[in-house]
Amino acid sequence: MNASPLHKFASLSQRSSRVALGLISGTSMDGIDTALVRIDSSSEPFSIQTLACLHEPYSTAEREALRAFIQCPDLEAMTVWDVYLGERFADTALRLIEQAGAPTVDVIGSHGQTIWHAPRGELFGKPAAGTLQIGQPDVIAARTGLPVVADFRTRDMAWGGQGAPLVPFVDWRLLSHPSENRVALNVGGIANVTLLPAGCEAKEIRALDTGPGNVLIDLATQYFTHGAHAYDAQGAFARKGKVNQHLLDSLLQHPYYIEPTPKSTGREMFGDGYFQTLRTELERLGMLDAIATLTELTARTIARSLSNFSAERLIAAGGGSHNSFLMERLQALLPGVRVESSAAHGIDPDFKEAIAFAVLADCFLRGEPASFPNTTGAQKTVLLGKCCLP
Amino acid sequence: MNASPLHKFASLSQRSSRVALGLISGTSMDGIDTALVRIDSSSEPFSIQTLACLHEPYSTAEREALRAFIQCPDLEAMTVWDVYLGERFADTALRLIEQAGAPTVDVIGSHGQTIWHAPRGELFGKPAAGTLQIGQPDVIAARTGLPVVADFRTRDMAWGGQGAPLVPFVDWRLLSHPSENRVALNVGGIANVTLLPAGCEAKEIRALDTGPGNVLIDLATQYFTHGAHAYDAQGAFARKGKVNQHLLDSLLQHPYYIEPTPKSTGREMFGDGYFQTLRTELERLGMLDAIATLTELTARTIARSLSNFSAERLIAAGGGSHNSFLMERLQALLPGVRVESSAAHGIDPDFKEAIAFAVLADCFLRGEPASFPNTTGAQKTVLLGKCCLP
Repeated sequence: MNASPLHKFASLSQRSSRVALGLISGTSMDGIDTALVRIDSSSEPFSIQTLACLHEPYSTAEREALRAFIQCPDLEAMTVWDVYLGERFADTALRLIEQAGAPTVDVIGSHGQTIWHAPRGELFGKPAAGTLQIGQPDVIAARTGLPVVADFRTRDMAWGGQGAPLVPFVDWRLLSHPSENRVALNVGGIANVTLLPAGCEAKEIRALDTGPGNVLIDLATQYFTHGAHAYDAQGAFARKGKVNQHLLDSLLQHPYYIEPTPKSTGREMFGDGYFQTLRTELERLGMLDAIATLTELTARTIARSLSNFSAERLIAAGGGSHNSFLMERLQALLPGVRVESSAAHGIDPDFKEAIAFAVLADCFLRGEPASFPNTTGAQKTVLLGKCCLP
Repeated sequence: MNASPLHKFASLSQRSSRVALGLISGTSMDGIDTALVRIDSSSEPFSIQTLACLHEPYSTAEREALRAFIQCPDLEAMTVWDVYLGERFADTALRLIEQAGAPTVDVIGSHGQTIWHAPRGELFGKPAAGTLQIGQPDVIAARTGLPVVADFRTRDMAWGGQGAPLVPFVDWRLLSHPSENRVALNVGGIANVTLLPAGCEAKEIRALDTGPGNVLIDLATQYFTHGAHAYDAQGAFARKGKVNQHLLDSLLQHPYYIEPTPKSTGREMFGDGYFQTLRTELERLGMLDAIATLTELTARTIARSLSNFSAERLIAAGGGSHNSFLMERLQALLPGVRVESSAAHGIDPDFKEAIAFAVLADCFLRGEPASFPNTTGAQKTVLLGKCCLP
């Protein structure tokens, strides 16, 4: 038998390094993030180099039509959206590859677009936990001519997992260290940390959402600037303000912060509704002090989540990692910890999720299980993904 | 690197024979067909042996709920049905394996349950041809611990194909012969033939629906027996009747029979509506002559479809292959052709589709493209399926 597509694909795992492309559109449905990375698996932790990244926004018409379809789904729309987004993902991948100077790409990992997540689903009284991502990987494989690994969450859920979070494993794979206790921090709307004890095994990873990341800072900035600023760039407003200790103490009383781990939260808890309850008090403080106080809240709750962990290095990603004032505050609150951007480890802080799915495709290729009882709640370690061969 | 699941799976193609299990629930949504086969690829055509077969009916509640969901889909139902049917498919596969004495199975090919097929789908003015099969293969892989190949139609459609028919390629793979012109016949509600010239390549396969298979015979039997008989078992009624030449000649005037090939038809053309237009005339003939005439129509239109092909052997499958009178009539109309059941070639005539998806999984494993411009209309030959590894 000469080399079949399956053999060719399997043989890639014998190389010490591979180039992988990750694709994801997040739950905000604002567009497609893609990242091209070189993964070197010849030593532990694997080293990674981000070669290129690209954000391809959905058009307003696409965004509105997609949301309308999700509100009122029908099978024809489901079928054509799956293919349409497959084409959009493929176009985005091809554009990134071209922009990167057309390197040889070994594998694509595509998360797709989540349109439903039912970790507690059941039918006829039987558990039927599932999740629905569209963006047909067979279309991506056809257009790019590359192997595509996709549908990363379904197998985990078949083993009783939540199908999420999947990024902590990637943090471990790329950022854990044999003799240094590390923390991978992501500051999006919500902030989350992955705790990586020195030399830990994957089954020892701990991960949790610490509470608000940028969400309250963004809302306050938008509110006080009447929308002229979407966020507090580099923390410039917060830096000029003064923390109101009384409000901060009161915010820190929120019961979420003392819930046991693992725990996760979202904009349902720390979003517009929560912001509205704080508005009068924030107005009394004025813009700069309000933003300073909310920034301090984010910094304190992140720092507090590390109170039982002797972190030596904190590696930050997400939009909030560009808030240099927030990062300075974190550094001040964590004097024994070196606080730095994930960029120092080859990971573009704005494309960590896209990078994660590139890495997860590489895990499938190497046969490495990427979900664990302690990260997703699955009953066992599970190999994630399905593959489409070109 | 020691053997990853991908390596182990790829290495199966080096064996001269493999055991594959096929799973499908057809468009009638009455239940799951499964077949276990041994495929020997050491000589051409591949030889196949059906080891065991099983039909697992959906319960009335399942059938009704599934149809209700398709009439009025929502994303939660879509997500949980995908997983629920994955569990049902897995249970059925495991039961068949147990019934067969627990042989080692190498791969599962699962067609799933089609819930939508949109070969002319488009979105924002762009083609977006797709198809939707549910019965989550990751669940089947998790429960059986076996590699699963699934989603056989999407890649073909990404290359402009109709995603169907896929069985003619399997006919070619299993039934073509180096020096004998063969025909693979399937007599379901509609009858179809695959023409396999001696020594032909896959790109030379021709396939077409010849017209009504059992559908009119069944409707007449049910009508005249007031539902006491669902079909004319072994053609016993037809055998006692006399063909009415006048009606037969008139039926043979239907324009479908002279349409150019490739062509396909369905119950929209030759179903209840058509039967109603014939009812008065069939009543005048009485049950036996009516059924004899309709049986002759099926035999004549199948035979006629071979008029430009010097067939030497016709290999029949489908429910109609058990109608021994129909088979005798076919033999009489095709004196130079040896008419026989697919059972003579290792293929259980009642499980040809389930067997086909077992064979298609084996094609994926060996890297053999299984759709072609002349079968599905795809722009090129295409490798079909995605794989889930245990």
